[in-house]
Amino acid sequence: MLRVRATRDRKLSYGDGRTVNLGGRALGPSPISVSYHPVASLQETLMGKYGEEAKLIYELQDQGGELLALRYDLTVPFARYLAMNKITNMKRYHIAKVYRRDNPATTRGRYREFYQCDFDIAGQFDPMIPDAECLKIVHEILSDLQLGDFLIKVNDRRILNGIFAVCGIPESKFVTACCTVDKLDKVPWEEVRGEMVGEKGLSPEAADHIGEYVQLHGGLELIERLLQDPKLSQNKLAKEGLGDMKLLFEYLTLFGITGKISFDLSLARGLDYYTGVIFEAVLLQQENEHVEEPVSVGSVAGGGRYDGLVGMFDPKGRKVPCVGVSIGIERIFSILEQRMKASGEKVRTTETQVLVATPHKHLLAARLKLISELWAAGIKAEMLYKKDPKLLKQLQYCEDTGIPLAAIVGEQELTDGVVKLRDVATRVEVDIPREKLVDEIRRRLEP
Amino acid sequence: MLRVRATRDRKLSYGDGRTVNLGGRALGPSPISVSYHPVASLQETLMGKYGEEAKLIYELQDQGGELLALRYDLTVPFARYLAMNKITNMKRYHIAKVYRRDNPATTRGRYREFYQCDFDIAGQFDPMIPDAECLKIVHEILSDLQLGDFLIKVNDRRILNGIFAVCGIPESKFVTACCTVDKLDKVPWEEVRGEMVGEKGLSPEAADHIGEYVQLHGGLELIERLLQDPKLSQNKLAKEGLGDMKLLFEYLTLFGITGKISFDLSLARGLDYYTGVIFEAVLLQQENEHVEEPVSVGSVAGGGRYDGLVGMFDPKGRKVPCVGVSIGIERIFSILEQRMKASGEKVRTTETQVLVATPHKHLLAARLKLISELWAAGIKAEMLYKKDPKLLKQLQYCEDTGIPLAAIVGEQELTDGVVKLRDVATRVEVDIPREKLVDEIRRRLEP
Repeated sequence: MLRVRATRDRKLSYGDGRTVNLGGRALGPSPISVSYHPVASLQETLMGKYGEEAKLIYELQDQGGELLALRYDLTVPFARYLAMNKITNMKRYHIAKVYRRDNPATTRGRYREFYQCDFDIAGQFDPMIPDAECLKIVHEILSDLQLGDFLIKVNDRRILNGIFAVCGIPESKFVTACCTVDKLDKVPWEEVRGEMVGEKGLSPEAADHIGEYVQLHGGLELIERLLQDPKLSQNKLAKEGLGDMKLLFEYLTLFGITGKISFDLSLARGLDYYTGVIFEAVLLQQENEHVEEPVSVGSVAGGGRYDGLVGMFDPKGRKVPCVGVSIGIERIFSILEQRMKASGEKVRTTETQVLVATPHKHLLAARLKLISELWAAGIKAEMLYKKDPKLLKQLQYCEDTGIPLAAIVGEQELTDGVVKLRDVATRVEVDIPREKLVDEIRRRLEP
Repeated sequence: MLRVRATRDRKLSYGDGRTVNLGGRALGPSPISVSYHPVASLQETLMGKYGEEAKLIYELQDQGGELLALRYDLTVPFARYLAMNKITNMKRYHIAKVYRRDNPATTRGRYREFYQCDFDIAGQFDPMIPDAECLKIVHEILSDLQLGDFLIKVNDRRILNGIFAVCGIPESKFVTACCTVDKLDKVPWEEVRGEMVGEKGLSPEAADHIGEYVQLHGGLELIERLLQDPKLSQNKLAKEGLGDMKLLFEYLTLFGITGKISFDLSLARGLDYYTGVIFEAVLLQQENEHVEEPVSVGSVAGGGRYDGLVGMFDPKGRKVPCVGVSIGIERIFSILEQRMKASGEKVRTTETQVLVATPHKHLLAARLKLISELWAAGIKAEMLYKKDPKLLKQLQYCEDTGIPLAAIVGEQELTDGVVKLRDVATRVEVDIPREKLVDEIRRRLEP
């Protein structure tokens, strides 16, 4: 379950200062949330705080003349890591921040500093088995998060390059043609054609020919049809790509997920490093009356095969084939946030199960003792940091923050060896013998 | 449970490239590990990988003339966050990377880029209640991790300043005297005295007088004694600090943790921003014959009260009192790593519960179908990415990576509607009806 508290600080230039509660990562038994902060800040922010240690502050302008840059994604660092460590075989996920010198658009979940979740499989394996697993994982994540209807578009760089070749485009223009085709999900074909002929200098005939192909999408039957295409079937790259695409669809059928997969020839993806299968998951327009205005978030996951990237970092150019996927977690968060805001659903920002409370003065010691017992039993307990808080204030705090139980000790309870356990929602209070309190709390908290 | 795989890359200048397996954060049902990578790299590393998107790469040398620096700790960013968002009350933890332009010493767990775990309580509360909770959390973490015997030293900046004052040190020299006193955990008093008199220009009498105080350590009885001290008791700051220290020890007694707490007047901590209680946890020399050479790691946690820091970032100087603690997770990791290496304990780097295997050729489809079923049931399953792997190779993989079960499907099993479930350790194989497989696996995996 992803839980988000929307306390944004739009004033920070680097990052957005949101507070995110990641369940199950509490350091201790107290319920505490994670807040995250930009990794880079103005130098002056750090000045005058660290005493003699200040000499260790990592200034970025001048590190012995090295030109530094912040990581742009998690794929290139992964490839470099494999090459530097001579690792030829690895499956891993990685959740970390990346940096883009972009114009932030917080409502659309676009920031200068943001988290990505990547999953990659590196190694020489039989064709399309790891690729199919990547798609299976994307399918699973998007289904589990209940983000609404989605579609995973799949294509292959070799098929695209084959199309460009049979349409008479010179190889030197493949990359730029790719970038233009990639715009087809945002603008109509006429505009893309215009850019091809105008800016990119392709002939109108070649552009029209490309247009016949890249507007196609479908499933296995389209793959079969293109394998029979008199021109494409003569192109080695296209044939390889289509053969692998067929294999991929067979595996996806066995995984039972072809219903949400579309072989889409307009998918190109902008990055240089893809060499084979590419894919991108998009959310489909929602028919949810609770959401006032439909959230436009574009793609929420994307990836593909990059068989050449590790070799670029290896001194001897040794290649390690890789396939991977990146989940746009910030975009997914902003969808979930807006949806919760629209539905008025209240989200708890702590996991506290019990508030340890006292009904009158001079009972701080009793609270400290009781909370220790609960913490020792692994119960998430909290108390107000006041010597003599009013009972009403303590109960109000439970209601405000959604704490389900209050364990109340007064003089009478101490004398009787009991604790008054209050159900915050129903306001029913029952005296529980102190030695049975932990068990009773556990019983109450059972789902 | 912290699990560490020691695959270090000592060649990376920025960070150490270790692979760390964080339990329970798998994106999908496949067992995958987290690897982490430096956030900054040479600009050239990122060149030629991103196509037209490359314009968004975050170069650090020149961002419109702003001088940037990487965060040095998580305390200053937290204080800034509170001020910018006008938050007066917050309890949170934060696990993230910080940066020091230091000489890395990987065996001692000291890096240029490393993780810190911070826990802070901000807000105006009754004295020493949040401070006591911070110490309770440190006590709990160090106990739970079973790092061996430890001691949490506690002192108060006000007591130190009071000592300096009654010893005749001018206020302008408090900070520098503090830094010198802080070295007492590494060098003997004679040396510290030498620095005070030589470099810092204190009189020998003042230094000797300071020495009488800062070599003291103890518990409640020492606090009581100092409260009666004819000079200290006349100093307002020292009296306040000692009064709060007494209160702190009362609360720590109720928490039952005073056995590992020492009121230590030599503890000074170098950072400027502390204003009250300060503390530091150190591991005590281990008497463990399995560890060949004792690990020298210094302190593993530290923190204190910083009531002025938020005000430094607030335009109107509004103060928010804060107390917090920082856990030296990298140091703790390096202790755990060395200990495991010394004991020969093998650490699993994946959480895979079942390997889906086939005994002969042409059964990839059967594996893909079966693994889908296990994933759907939430079982952590894996298979080799080969079309026709040899059975021996699959079983060897289980033994190498510690996978406890293998689910084997061959033609015979498919015909009979069963799966052969193999216990990897005992090599016992039993045919399980397919519809009962998930339940049987769950039963076998029960602790």
